[in-house]
Amino acid sequence: MKHFISPADVPSVPALVEEALRQKANPFGDQALGRQKTMGLLFFNASLRTRLSTQKAAQNLGMQVMVMNVGSDSWQLEMADGVVMDGGKAEHVKEAAAVIGQYCDIIGVRAFAELQDRTLDYQEVVMEKFKQYAGVPIVNLESATRHPCQSLADLVTIEELRNKARPKVVLTWVPHFKPLPQAVANSFAEWVNHMDYEFVIAHPPGYELDPAFVGKAQVTHDQVEAFQGADFIYAKNWSSYTQYGQVLLEDPAWRITAEKMAWTDQGRFMHCLPVRRGLKVEDAVLDSPQSVVIQQAGNRVWSVQAALKNILEAM
Amino acid sequence: MKHFISPADVPSVPALVEEALRQKANPFGDQALGRQKTMGLLFFNASLRTRLSTQKAAQNLGMQVMVMNVGSDSWQLEMADGVVMDGGKAEHVKEAAAVIGQYCDIIGVRAFAELQDRTLDYQEVVMEKFKQYAGVPIVNLESATRHPCQSLADLVTIEELRNKARPKVVLTWVPHFKPLPQAVANSFAEWVNHMDYEFVIAHPPGYELDPAFVGKAQVTHDQVEAFQGADFIYAKNWSSYTQYGQVLLEDPAWRITAEKMAWTDQGRFMHCLPVRRGLKVEDAVLDSPQSVVIQQAGNRVWSVQAALKNILEAM
Amino acid sequence: MKHFISPADVPSVPALVEEALRQKANPFGDQALGRQKTMGLLFFNASLRTRLSTQKAAQNLGMQVMVMNVGSDSWQLEMADGVVMDGGKAEHVKEAAAVIGQYCDIIGVRAFAELQDRTLDYQEVVMEKFKQYAGVPIVNLESATRHPCQSLADLVTIEELRNKARPKVVLTWVPHFKPLPQAVANSFAEWVNHMDYEFVIAHPPGYELDPAFVGKAQVTHDQVEAFQGADFIYAKNWSSYTQYGQVLLEDPAWRITAEKMAWTDQGRFMHCLPVRRGLKVEDAVLDSPQSVVIQQAGNRVWSVQAALKNILEAM
Repeated sequence: MKHFISPADVPSVPALVEEALRQKANPFGDQALGRQKTMGLLFFNASLRTRLSTQKAAQNLGMQVMVMNVGSDSWQLEMADGVVMDGGKAEHVKEAAAVIGQYCDIIGVRAFAELQDRTLDYQEVVMEKFKQYAGVPIVNLESATRHPCQSLADLVTIEELRNKARPKVVLTWVPHFKPLPQAVANSFAEWVNHMDYEFVIAHPPGYELDPAFVGKAQVTHDQVEAFQGADFIYAKNWSSYTQYGQVLLEDPAWRITAEKMAWTDQGRFMHCLPVRRGLKVEDAVLDSPQSVVIQQAGNRVWSVQAALKNILEAM
Repeated sequence: MKHFISPADVPSVPALVEEALRQKANPFGDQALGRQKTMGLLFFNASLRTRLSTQKAAQNLGMQVMVMNVGSDSWQLEMADGVVMDGGKAEHVKEAAAVIGQYCDIIGVRAFAELQDRTLDYQEVVMEKFKQYAGVPIVNLESATRHPCQSLADLVTIEELRNKARPKVVLTWVPHFKPLPQAVANSFAEWVNHMDYEFVIAHPPGYELDPAFVGKAQVTHDQVEAFQGADFIYAKNWSSYTQYGQVLLEDPAWRITAEKMAWTDQGRFMHCLPVRRGLKVEDAVLDSPQSVVIQQAGNRVWSVQAALKNILEAM
Repeated sequence: MKHFISPADVPSVPALVEEALRQKANPFGDQALGRQKTMGLLFFNASLRTRLSTQKAAQNLGMQVMVMNVGSDSWQLEMADGVVMDGGKAEHVKEAAAVIGQYCDIIGVRAFAELQDRTLDYQEVVMEKFKQYAGVPIVNLESATRHPCQSLADLVTIEELRNKARPKVVLTWVPHFKPLPQAVANSFAEWVNHMDYEFVIAHPPGYELDPAFVGKAQVTHDQVEAFQGADFIYAKNWSSYTQYGQVLLEDPAWRITAEKMAWTDQGRFMHCLPVRRGLKVEDAVLDSPQSVVIQQAGNRVWSVQAALKNILEAM
């Protein structure tokens, strides 16, 4: 594996899930692999799970880790080509990526969608520029349209917990007052499409995801129907893709409640976190044994560790 | 030792002081103890000594260290239960603590008093929530009401320097124009109460500390009397506990001067740092051989290293 | 070598260049040297290359590294002596430097010129205070008037690429709308003066550097003349030294273009980075094979690694 930006970089998604479970069973078994290698973690945006789990995974593999908040620790980066740089951005990504590639054997990059210009966001400018100029493997720590480290951890969690050969997995939109990126939802759909699950996406009208990510999922506007017999409920808010970046409704009727969870087949509750309690999900759900959000967050380590292992082996 | 939040967690304070002195004599003797273990350091507030000394101590014990500024590196955390999270705080401590506990074997947390609501501050909400939800040992890197890493280092310094079986130790209030927490003063008093010292607390009226921390100390409003024959002068400002968080006076008469130090029995000058020169203490005191503030800061490493060692051994 | 603040600390500049090339050829050959030693990196200002390359170099030498942004991670530092500290700065450099010296075996410090008061900037207050109070070796990660880690990397790059015994090296001023420090230009001149190069400095009238740094360089206001037959073009903006900190002109005629590069003897283009594309240099130059800015940035690791090696050996 050269990069880890989307499932397109992964030879086999189920095999990578297996590798993550192997890393979990034996966290320090591949320490020799990363010896004398350096991982750089670049954050254009805040991060808790990704920041800590990726650092931990790289260290488990014997790597040195350097963490940098872009724009506060360092300079703001210009992404556009051919401009005269006479504004607030002191450095161009062409130089920054190439320079960091001189210091790091693998670079992880987090850069959220700006939700102003759909075409620009969906071009994945930051990931593409780093891929183009860094000269070393790039790991997507959540980009404008994808969050593969999260999605892989989600699959690992489902594989650990499913008690059916073909579980019913539901991705449901939940309300939020702020416009959030589509990255987690896109990516979850994209990765689940590589597994043999019954896959349903439930959201209000106007919240259709980019069809490129939806794949074989069954889409419904009826949350009640979606929850029937579900084994996994994956809750996430996202802003509108069609009316790009807009909050079309904040309807609390889409919030996840204990009552709704009772419609499922003893379904597990999943969320990528952070989650706004009360707003998107009732406390009663998050505090119930059905919630697996902490296990899911813990699996972030083993997922990125599996991805890093594959990248290190391909060097 | 499970946690390191207050002396109540410590089986024997004098024994822990001894352990710190052993760590100082042999900094790398316990490197095997922390191998393949990770320490997370979470800062809700600024830090210099605590940030660097704890990082160093954990590394001396063979641990990996991950440092995170909460709220800027990551999300702002909601501490209150049962609220609808529709404000600026994107994540609840219930999730954050539990998630970080998935990545770290020990978590150090710094969260200062907000000085708005005494009951809230003295409930030690942040420490208690982390203790409750993280599932791993918590180290108090200065909380609303305590700073045990500092206090232990203070005792180590006194033990290194005392030339009497039972030295006279004076904690004296000094002036400051800003309201500061009571944590260092509380904690110093709490820890000194575990040692066989003559202990005096001097402060102006209105600056009484919470009696729970004062213990067997002799309290006086007369700084002159307190300094007579003292072996150690520990200077610290704190805001009022009774008129909570208020600055009642800024009287420069309480400032530490060379003249006052002459009243002591060749007493040593101590301060937790940072110290505002000129405001709280004359330059002549800080620049004199009587000042041991740098040795005291250096002892921060060995103190927290002793605490971490005990925690690692109890795992 | 005790400190690494200017070439005055270096027994032999050419020998240090050689050492850097040896480190580049064998990056992990001296890992035993830094074992159980800690490097502290203190940033009063933003940094990308210096932050990452110094961290990497110290780790290559087996050291532990602790990075701190002064003033945001920790407290703001007072530099003036004898003041009553009743403003925004909570800690004096006297204490801060001495304390950090308790935790670190070597301290790297970045503190830019403030460009308000030339005398103050050229006194190098921050470097001098750290040197005076820390009690351990200090590495200059760019100070008010110098950037030795950069300049050493510049010499390494020239030595790697020169195809003449005595290359013609040109430092040329380029335009910028903001006042920038003279540190990189000063330091480049100072270091080049230790090598047997033909050395020319080209700038508009009013941009004369401090003569102490210019040394044996030939100074001209004629960029065309300077570029004739040049082997290396080193572009850099700096604000006026004589009319201190001012931007006297932003004349785009001083920008580096492909046309100008054609006047050279297949000259290499160098810049310390970050560089504002379009403003200081045409894209066509930076994107041409003549540009060696990435190699130059890569050499930052080996340069500071050579300096650290010499410091560690002298301990």
